[in-house]
Amino acid sequence: MIIDKLFKEVEKKGNVCVGLDSHLEYIPDHIKEKYQDVDEILFQFNKNIIDRTMDIVPVYKLQIAFYEAYGIKGLVAYKRTIEYIRNNGIITIGDIKRGDIASTAEMYAKAHFEGDFQVDFITLNPYMGFDSITPYLKYIDKGDKGIFVLLRTSNPGAKDIQYLEISSSEDTQSKKLYYHVGDKLYEMGSKYIGSCGYSSIGAVVGGTHRDEAEEIRGRYKNMFFLIPGYGHQGGKGEDVALYLSDGNGGVVNSSRGIITAYKSYEDGEENYDKYARDAVLAMKEDIESEGRV
Amino acid sequence: MIIDKLFKEVEKKGNVCVGLDSHLEYIPDHIKEKYQDVDEILFQFNKNIIDRTMDIVPVYKLQIAFYEAYGIKGLVAYKRTIEYIRNNGIITIGDIKRGDIASTAEMYAKAHFEGDFQVDFITLNPYMGFDSITPYLKYIDKGDKGIFVLLRTSNPGAKDIQYLEISSSEDTQSKKLYYHVGDKLYEMGSKYIGSCGYSSIGAVVGGTHRDEAEEIRGRYKNMFFLIPGYGHQGGKGEDVALYLSDGNGGVVNSSRGIITAYKSYEDGEENYDKYARDAVLAMKEDIESEGRV
Repeated sequence: MIIDKLFKEVEKKGNVCVGLDSHLEYIPDHIKEKYQDVDEILFQFNKNIIDRTMDIVPVYKLQIAFYEAYGIKGLVAYKRTIEYIRNNGIITIGDIKRGDIASTAEMYAKAHFEGDFQVDFITLNPYMGFDSITPYLKYIDKGDKGIFVLLRTSNPGAKDIQYLEISSSEDTQSKKLYYHVGDKLYEMGSKYIGSCGYSSIGAVVGGTHRDEAEEIRGRYKNMFFLIPGYGHQGGKGEDVALYLSDGNGGVVNSSRGIITAYKSYEDGEENYDKYARDAVLAMKEDIESEGRV
Repeated sequence: MIIDKLFKEVEKKGNVCVGLDSHLEYIPDHIKEKYQDVDEILFQFNKNIIDRTMDIVPVYKLQIAFYEAYGIKGLVAYKRTIEYIRNNGIITIGDIKRGDIASTAEMYAKAHFEGDFQVDFITLNPYMGFDSITPYLKYIDKGDKGIFVLLRTSNPGAKDIQYLEISSSEDTQSKKLYYHVGDKLYEMGSKYIGSCGYSSIGAVVGGTHRDEAEEIRGRYKNMFFLIPGYGHQGGKGEDVALYLSDGNGGVVNSSRGIITAYKSYEDGEENYDKYARDAVLAMKEDIESEGRV
């Protein structure tokens, strides 16, 4: 199962997920001067970072919004980048956060688990209910695909809806909405547990709030976490480490913190890929010094 | 403001929003034989329906999943279709249901309110909170763009999360989650009310449940509704009419019910655009006989 591959990659390389949110503003001038088309600029920027980091990175995440923003050419760059990563045998997450009625979800599954935009994992939004998740299960069942569903995100607005106290007929006590979502997903995921002990149905749990980390980790023992919010959004190594279990069971995403790390150095532009690598190594150490005993 | 244009179009043409969810399986063989590329097939299928219906249709909605499913070429068809509709002066809704942290939402806004995929309205998912909505406000403020945020959707799974009873510190009594979302959006939308009396911040309210229709319509007087669920999903004219106010204040989407209407007729394939028109007229009458006094 894909989750076993991810688990093994994390064992070998650590927990850093590199987010290739490649805004044109983040890209050094020499690349923008060398190539004409935006698809080539975005792809070449990504490729150099991938080449320089893939021995220490278990998984790359592409936030598709950064590619949609550049229209058709942006999506060509998205396609080329995920193909390049997959051709190197590395795992990809398409951060698409889709969520729609079943017949539409089938089309999103076709879009992101087959064809041009094929990745190994996608992120999903649960607001429309669990019938918006089920169309993806047949792909998960085959073994080579997985999903991360939004539970509790890293942004300030997470409190607006995800933190609401809800009462349902199934429970005597009220609980936070994200636990309601998490409990259902945990049940759903119990059918897709790999030999590593984790399920191919994982969850997005922001690393910016450390209060509930132990409770979340303890409550969902078989759930693998995609943890955003490290770095630019405020999450620290000691915070995100609380969501791991013996140093595995999660990957921690950083995007700007890695791909724009070069901006702090005078010779940064020419060596942006080297500084991306340095940033991955520093982040790895920051997490491991807390997370692995 | 764009909402005023939509209001006027509805006054003139009625409430039918045609959903161009153009699955290849829905497309007659003669079109698939005539054109080679999937982008041309999808576009030509759409174009003929648009040409045949635009005098009686105030707005077209494209579910982007049906285009993403065909990869880059699918998205070229999406681009060409929305450009064609807009060039004819007709309003478009990009049914994208995106929802993400603010910096990502800015990229989605750039993607769907500018450039290749520019439409007049988009749909948004509120699960990540209200800071996932605010990046779109600057476009709304300029007057030519609007949003429809998911409140209560038309699918069975809507009950899983949107119907949950929530208690918050602001309210003494518990209320359903969709009212919590709706109340916040209503407040947000009060700044963007056009001369027609409706706001450019609208909501997606499924037409499959009639129980709460009067309460929802009464509670959100200035809110324009995008109402899915008519036809294939079970919504009837008398149900959806309850969400309207003097025959305006909402558009009712139908996709398969219109674009595959031809399948019931022996001479359907050759005349699919005519049968799409007939289906729009029948739906218009079904809604108007209930909704307009």
